[in-house]
Amino acid sequence: MSTLTRFGISMDSKLLQRFDAYITEHGYANRSEAVRDLVRERLVQKSWDKGDEEMVGTITLVFDHHQRDLTEKLTSQQHDHHETVLSAMHVHLDHYNCLEVLAVRGKASDIQHIADHLISVKGVKHGKLVMTATGKGL
Amino acid sequence: MSTLTRFGISMDSKLLQRFDAYITEHGYANRSEAVRDLVRERLVQKSWDKGDEEMVGTITLVFDHHQRDLTEKLTSQQHDHHETVLSAMHVHLDHYNCLEVLAVRGKASDIQHIADHLISVKGVKHGKLVMTATGKGL
Amino acid sequence: MSTLTRFGISMDSKLLQRFDAYITEHGYANRSEAVRDLVRERLVQKSWDKGDEEMVGTITLVFDHHQRDLTEKLTSQQHDHHETVLSAMHVHLDHYNCLEVLAVRGKASDIQHIADHLISVKGVKHGKLVMTATGKGL
Amino acid sequence: MSTLTRFGISMDSKLLQRFDAYITEHGYANRSEAVRDLVRERLVQKSWDKGDEEMVGTITLVFDHHQRDLTEKLTSQQHDHHETVLSAMHVHLDHYNCLEVLAVRGKASDIQHIADHLISVKGVKHGKLVMTATGKGL
Repeated sequence: MSTLTRFGISMDSKLLQRFDAYITEHGYANRSEAVRDLVRERLVQKSWDKGDEEMVGTITLVFDHHQRDLTEKLTSQQHDHHETVLSAMHVHLDHYNCLEVLAVRGKASDIQHIADHLISVKGVKHGKLVMTATGKGL
Repeated sequence: MSTLTRFGISMDSKLLQRFDAYITEHGYANRSEAVRDLVRERLVQKSWDKGDEEMVGTITLVFDHHQRDLTEKLTSQQHDHHETVLSAMHVHLDHYNCLEVLAVRGKASDIQHIADHLISVKGVKHGKLVMTATGKGL
Repeated sequence: MSTLTRFGISMDSKLLQRFDAYITEHGYANRSEAVRDLVRERLVQKSWDKGDEEMVGTITLVFDHHQRDLTEKLTSQQHDHHETVLSAMHVHLDHYNCLEVLAVRGKASDIQHIADHLISVKGVKHGKLVMTATGKGL
Repeated sequence: MSTLTRFGISMDSKLLQRFDAYITEHGYANRSEAVRDLVRERLVQKSWDKGDEEMVGTITLVFDHHQRDLTEKLTSQQHDHHETVLSAMHVHLDHYNCLEVLAVRGKASDIQHIADHLISVKGVKHGKLVMTATGKGL
């Protein structure tokens, strides 16, 4: 079982006032949750930089499905990495353009490699990798 | 109908050599596709900074679904913005942790606001907004 | 006079353990200073996004000073914006390459404009804008 | 001697139109220079990620020099790394706040370590590392 620890933070009143405005603007319930989010965000970044843990990511792709063989190529690449690509969601943006989001899980370098090779496919207009974590230890 | 234009680029041979290595490493079919990707990436960034177009995004959330009322809260927030949130994909990471990815479409500031308010919910351990585009004009 | 306020943060023990490791690795004196840094970093980002305050920045440029008229062009552009460009530091990297860093102060959009127009000059090989703040209210 | 190579790029007319608008807005002399900048920016990023080359960086710090022993501490840390820290520029922002920019050169991981340990010092309100390159091969 995980347990909660409580500790004190001292902060200049003016800085705290600005932080409280940020907290309200973003809809945080309290300062603890806002601080935890900043801490987790930083730790997730560090984990990706180090590449020493199993990570989770999402790969967002925008492409024109009329591009010859594109859908086939993307599907085939995803199957080549079926142990890493967990699932996919497809959204029809208009008559031509599609949004596809893949959920991936694996070593940081493997995920980066798969994202690079999907984004580079002709007909993929824009692609982005989001690096997040499995949630363990966060 | 869109038409293709061809234009020339001059580049120092050493720089071109390094660019060609990058192209090979990422699996690009040719220099044109790699240059187009760099251009599109920069234009998408600029569009988001300006906030003057209809944009598309994905919001990635990692959370512990055992957190009381969390699933309900996230679902309810998504429905409050049903005109912006297009669809959602859910992945079970382990007994506790979930990955949820939302596809969103709307004004940059609205998308940012929705992302901020989902990420700030207690129990959401990590969240990230990817800003991409509708694909029109890219 | 500014005053210090103290408030409590609750955090899962496992998350706190990872945060403490981060704190040690970065040489922070204590948790308060590490949390304040995360808060200030986020607030500075937000201020730049909003563009509603007087900001401070540094513009880093790497260029080949043998490029014809380059030094003259960069100096002249800096003087055109003498009310924004506060000072400059020049480092000789090798026989050809120079590093120049400018300290700038002004509206976010003005600083961005100046940075864009310096980075785009032929012979400037790489340029980056760092967005920081005047330090007031941080 | 370095030599110039010329190669052709094909681009959808609508995309090229948007790119040309970007080129004009940023003050680029021509498309070649704009493309070269995008290529160099990407290659510099990759070099930093790989950490396999000698890199150049700038570390921007905003701090309150009234903080006890701060100036001394920062100076001493810089001297501990005198082989990496090339030079420093100091700007007086107001009665309390200072901007200091350091030019650094060395292995990516060493530069990152020095930046982390300067930014973590109490009294340093904000700090940022810019990663650039020596200019060779760009």
